[in-house]
Amino acid sequence: MSQKQADRDVQNATRALNADATRPFPASRRIYLQGNRPDVRVPMREIALSPTVGSAGTEDNPPFPVYDTSGPYGDPEVEIDLVRGLPAQRAGWIEERGDTEALTGPSSEYGRARAGASETAHLRFQHVRTPRRARDGQCVTQMHYARKGIITPEMEYVAIRENQALDRLEAQGLLTARHPGQAFGANLPERYTPEFVRDEIAAGRAILPNNINHPESEPMIIGRNFRVKINANFGNSAVTSSIAEEVEKLIWSTRWGADTVMDLSTGDHIHETREWIVRNAPVPVGTVPLYQALEKVNGVPEDLTWEVFRDTLIEQAEQGVDYFTIHAGVRLPFIPMTTERTTGIVSRGGSIMAAWCLAHHRESFLYEHFEDICEIMKAYDVAFSLGDGLRPGSIADANDEAQFAELKTLGELTKIAWEHDVQVMIEGPGHVPMQLIKENMDKELEACFDAPFYTLGPLATDIAPGYDHITSAIGAAQIAWYGTAMLCYVTPKEHLGLPDRDDVREGIVTYRLAAHAADLAKGHPAAQARDNALSKARFEFRWEDQFNLGLDPERAREYHDATLPKEGHKRAHFCSMCGPKFCSMKISHDVREFARRKGLDEAEALEAGMKEQAVAFRARGSRVYLQDEEH
Amino acid sequence: MSQKQADRDVQNATRALNADATRPFPASRRIYLQGNRPDVRVPMREIALSPTVGSAGTEDNPPFPVYDTSGPYGDPEVEIDLVRGLPAQRAGWIEERGDTEALTGPSSEYGRARAGASETAHLRFQHVRTPRRARDGQCVTQMHYARKGIITPEMEYVAIRENQALDRLEAQGLLTARHPGQAFGANLPERYTPEFVRDEIAAGRAILPNNINHPESEPMIIGRNFRVKINANFGNSAVTSSIAEEVEKLIWSTRWGADTVMDLSTGDHIHETREWIVRNAPVPVGTVPLYQALEKVNGVPEDLTWEVFRDTLIEQAEQGVDYFTIHAGVRLPFIPMTTERTTGIVSRGGSIMAAWCLAHHRESFLYEHFEDICEIMKAYDVAFSLGDGLRPGSIADANDEAQFAELKTLGELTKIAWEHDVQVMIEGPGHVPMQLIKENMDKELEACFDAPFYTLGPLATDIAPGYDHITSAIGAAQIAWYGTAMLCYVTPKEHLGLPDRDDVREGIVTYRLAAHAADLAKGHPAAQARDNALSKARFEFRWEDQFNLGLDPERAREYHDATLPKEGHKRAHFCSMCGPKFCSMKISHDVREFARRKGLDEAEALEAGMKEQAVAFRARGSRVYLQDEEH
Repeated sequence: MSQKQADRDVQNATRALNADATRPFPASRRIYLQGNRPDVRVPMREIALSPTVGSAGTEDNPPFPVYDTSGPYGDPEVEIDLVRGLPAQRAGWIEERGDTEALTGPSSEYGRARAGASETAHLRFQHVRTPRRARDGQCVTQMHYARKGIITPEMEYVAIRENQALDRLEAQGLLTARHPGQAFGANLPERYTPEFVRDEIAAGRAILPNNINHPESEPMIIGRNFRVKINANFGNSAVTSSIAEEVEKLIWSTRWGADTVMDLSTGDHIHETREWIVRNAPVPVGTVPLYQALEKVNGVPEDLTWEVFRDTLIEQAEQGVDYFTIHAGVRLPFIPMTTERTTGIVSRGGSIMAAWCLAHHRESFLYEHFEDICEIMKAYDVAFSLGDGLRPGSIADANDEAQFAELKTLGELTKIAWEHDVQVMIEGPGHVPMQLIKENMDKELEACFDAPFYTLGPLATDIAPGYDHITSAIGAAQIAWYGTAMLCYVTPKEHLGLPDRDDVREGIVTYRLAAHAADLAKGHPAAQARDNALSKARFEFRWEDQFNLGLDPERAREYHDATLPKEGHKRAHFCSMCGPKFCSMKISHDVREFARRKGLDEAEALEAGMKEQAVAFRARGSRVYLQDEEH
Repeated sequence: MSQKQADRDVQNATRALNADATRPFPASRRIYLQGNRPDVRVPMREIALSPTVGSAGTEDNPPFPVYDTSGPYGDPEVEIDLVRGLPAQRAGWIEERGDTEALTGPSSEYGRARAGASETAHLRFQHVRTPRRARDGQCVTQMHYARKGIITPEMEYVAIRENQALDRLEAQGLLTARHPGQAFGANLPERYTPEFVRDEIAAGRAILPNNINHPESEPMIIGRNFRVKINANFGNSAVTSSIAEEVEKLIWSTRWGADTVMDLSTGDHIHETREWIVRNAPVPVGTVPLYQALEKVNGVPEDLTWEVFRDTLIEQAEQGVDYFTIHAGVRLPFIPMTTERTTGIVSRGGSIMAAWCLAHHRESFLYEHFEDICEIMKAYDVAFSLGDGLRPGSIADANDEAQFAELKTLGELTKIAWEHDVQVMIEGPGHVPMQLIKENMDKELEACFDAPFYTLGPLATDIAPGYDHITSAIGAAQIAWYGTAMLCYVTPKEHLGLPDRDDVREGIVTYRLAAHAADLAKGHPAAQARDNALSKARFEFRWEDQFNLGLDPERAREYHDATLPKEGHKRAHFCSMCGPKFCSMKISHDVREFARRKGLDEAEALEAGMKEQAVAFRARGSRVYLQDEEH
C-alpha cells in the first residue's frame, strides 16, 4: 500500500468517526479562559440553559461552564486533520525556555530503524516531529522549574483550569449552598493560583505530565489538592485492531472526560500506533514500556535486558509519551510472598518482572538501573507512574505483605526520582474490601511522602464480573475521597474481554461521576456548582437543562424519551415515574407558591396564622393535578 | 371479559415470562437446608463447579451454595400456577399459634366493595384467601413473640438462612483467608442462632416482616447485624401496565436477588393488582397506603381523611402486605423548613401530606392517629417503614433541618410502635455527598434507638442522570457498611422514567453487589466465601465457574464471548484483555509451579539458593506463552 493510499485510508476511516465521536454536546459551545499571556487559553465547554419560568416572571439562567478534556476536538472552529496531527500549542513555551535542543532524528536504535523501515511505511505517521531533548546537563521537568521558583505557562494554565470559572459560578449564586468537605489532611484552596500549583509540584504532591515531545497536549495536573482525574486505557492485544480504531478510542475517551489515556497496545506496530496516538492526543499519554520491550525479545521475559529496555524508554520519550509505568518495585525477595496468594500476581508488568527475576535469580534490572532511568526521564520530562506489580487481584489478597513491601520500595524510588527532579506518581490497587481501602491511602501517603496516588478502582468485591465498573467505582469514589489523585477506569468488560466503544463510554462516565463524588466530599471549591445547577433545573422541570448539565446528556434524554418521547413532555411538570398526580416536585411547588403569594415566607406564614391561608390554598383548589392536555 | 378468559390471559401472558424469568441459572440446582422442624426448609441455590486441574493432579471443587430469594420460582420441582398463587408455606405456623382467627371476608369497606364489584371481575384474583386477624386483644407480631421469649419457626428459618451454609464453606477452606470486618458498633456473630434472631427482634434492632395474611412468603430479616438486604420497587403510574406485567416484574426481581419488593402502583385497579402480587410473592411486599388512599379521593390531598386512610390500611393488611410506608413524620411545623430548599419535598408521600397539612392548617392525621395505626398493624403483623417524607432530593439539601427534624419525630413514633410490639424500620435518604453519609447513619441509630435503617441510595452526586444506579450504589455501599439494614434499589431510569425489565435487573444486580461489598466490610461471617471461590476459579482459568459464581452469569458469559466466543476459549489460559503472551495469571502460575516442582515453598527456595533453580526455570523455557493451537 502506498503512503498516499494509507493516508487516505486513515482519513476515510476517521472521517466517519469524526462526525460521530466529535458530535457536539447539546446546547454547548467552546469557550476559552484567557491567562496573563495571550497564548494561555484554557478551554471549557459552556452549556446554554433555558430561563426559569415562574409565576413571578421569567428569570434567565446564565450558561454553565464545565471542565473540558476534549481538546481541539471540542472546538468546531478547529479543523481536525488526523493525518497531520493536532496543533503544537505548547511548542513555543518549550522552545522559549532555551534548555532543550532539536535533534536531527530519533536517538534510539529502534526509533531510527523504524523511521526507515519499508515494511511499515504504509502505517507510518508522516508528519513526525523532530524530537527534542534537554541540552547536556539540563533538567527540563516541571518539577525542576517549580523547585527553582519558576511559574511556567503550564502552571498558570492549570491554575485557571482547576478553578473551573469558579468566580462566575459564585456570582450566580450556584455555590451559596455548599457543604464543607472532609479532606483527610488534603489542603484544597478556595482559589487556585499559579503559585499554589508551583508549590504543589515542587513538593512532589502533584505532577504536571507534559513531555516536551508532546506539545499537542493541554496542561493538566494530578494531585490530591486538585480535581480528581481519571484515566482511560485502550490498546489492542491479541486481537488486531487498526490504527484508525485506536485513534478513534482516543478521541472518544477525551470526549467523555478522560484526563489522560494509556496506550497499552501489545500487538504488532506498537511504535507506529503510538505515533498516531500521541500526535493526535490533547491529553497526556501514558504507556508501559515493558510491554514493547517484551515484544522486542519475542515475548520471552528472560531475554529482556536493560539495553533493550533503555532503548525503548528513549524511543517512547522521543515520541512524546508523558508518563511511563515502571514496575521497579517488583524485587526478587518479594516474589515468594506471592506464592500463597489466592490470585498470585495479576499485574502484567509485575508478572513479567517476576519471571525475569526468577529466571536469572537476580534483582530486577529496573530496580538496579533506576537512576539511569531517571536520567532519561528528566531529559524529556517524562513522569514516573511507579507500577504496583504486586497489587492484589482479589479481595483475599488485599493489603498483604507483598503489596506493602512493594509500596515501601516505591517510596524509596520516589525519593531517588525526586533527587533528579523527576515527577512521580504511585500506582495502587486493585481489589480491596471497603474496610481496608483507607489503609492503602494512608500507607501510600506515608511511604511515598505524599506523592500522588493513582489507583485502579479498587474493586470492593470480586463477585460481579460484568459489573466491575460499578464494584470498582464504589472503591474508587472512596479512595479518591481519602486522597487518590487519579483513578484508572475499569469497564464492564474487566476480567472478561476487551472493551468496545460503548464500554469505554460506560467506564469513563462511571469514573467521572465517582471522581466528582470525591471532589464534593473533599470539598473542591467548584465541585458543587454543577450539582446545584442540575438540581435547580430538575426542580424547575427544565428537562433539557437537566439532561444537558449531566455527564451524559444523550443517555439521559434517551432514557426520558423511552416513556415520554413527545417534545411537549420536555416541558411537562412531571415525568413517567410518578405521573402528573403524584409528582412531589409539582406539589412542592404549589406549597412554595402558596407561601410566596401571601408575600410571606412559610416560617412567618405559620406564625402569622396559617388557618387563613389554609382557606386560601383550598380556594385555589389545592392544585395537585397538573391539567396537562397531553396526558 | 369472562373470568375464565381473564385467567387464561394471565396464564398465557405469564407462560412466556415463566420460561424466561424463571430460566434456571447455569449449573445450578435448588437445595433445602433442614431445620429442627420438618417444615422449616430453607432454600439455597447450589452452583456446581468444575475441578481444578493442575500439574499435581485434579482436585474437585464442591458445589457452592448461595442465598436465594427466588422462592418456588427457583425450584424446578414446584409447578407454578400464577392463577392459584404460591403454596402457603407458613400457614401452619400461623394457625398453630392459636392467636388468630379466620374472618368470613374482608373487614374493610373497600375490600368488601371490591370483592363483589362486577366491573373488575375479569381482573380479580380468584383464589383469594380468607383473611385472618388477631383474636380480640391479641398481638401477633414477631416482636411480640420475641419479647415473650418465644422462638418462632420464622426465627429459626432466618437463622439458618443467614448462616448461608457457613459450616460447609468453612470446611472447604473458603473462609480461611477472611479479613476482619469494621462494624461501627454493629454486632455480627460468628454463627446465627435462633436465639440471636429472637433477641435482635425483641430489641427492635431487626424486623421479620411477615404478615399473617401472606403465608406464601419466606421468612427473611432486616437488621444491621444480618446480611444487608435490598428492595426492588415496581408498580405502574400514569402509563398503564397490565397485571401480568407487574407479576412478571415481581418474579424477575426475586430472580436477581430482591429480598423484598414494594408495589408502588398508583394507577387503576391497585387493589386487584396487589392481590395478584401478594399471592405470588415469595418475598415480603411493602406498599405506601397513602397512594391508594389518594386515589380513593380522586387525587385531591385535602380530601384525604383518617377514615379513608384507616380503611385502606385494613384492606391492605388483609390482603397480606408485609410493611407499610407511613409518612407520619411530616408534621405541620416542619413544612416551612423546606421552602428554601433547592429541591423542596421530593417524596410523593411527603408532598401529599404537606399539601394536606397546609390546606387544613392542621397537624398530620397520620401523626395524630399513630396509636390507632399501631392497633391495626399489630393485629396482622404489618411492620412500619416510617417514611422520610422530607428526605433531601439534592446534594444541596442533604442533612438539613427539615430532614433531621423529621428523623427525630420518627424516633418518637418508633417508641410508640414498640409499646405496641409493632415492628419498625426507618426510611432514609436520598441525595447525600459522601462526607455527610455517616452522620445520617449515626443520627438514625441515636434518634431511633437502633431501629433498622432502610435507605434509598443515597446518591453521592446529582450530576449523572442515566447513571443513578451507580451514583447511588456508591452511597448505598457506604451507608450499608455504616449500618443500614436494607437498601432500596435505584435503576438507571431514576429521575427520567419508569424502569423496564432490563433496568430492574441492572438495578438489582448493582444493589446486590453494593450490599455484598458492605457485608464484606462489616464482617458478615459468610460473605467472603463467594469472593474467594470466584477468585480461585478466576486464577485457575475455570471460566464457566467464574461466570456462574458471579451475580449475573449470563452477562459475564455474554461479555466474555463478545471477543472469544469459541468453546475452547472457555478452557484457555488467557482472555482477550491481555492475550496469551501477556497473561499475568499464566505467568504467575509458572512462577508458582516452578517453586512447587522443586518441592520447596518459594521462601525456602530463595534462601536455599535460587540461582540453581533459576537455571532450571530457564531450562523449561521460561514458559510465558501458552501454546494454544486455537490462537
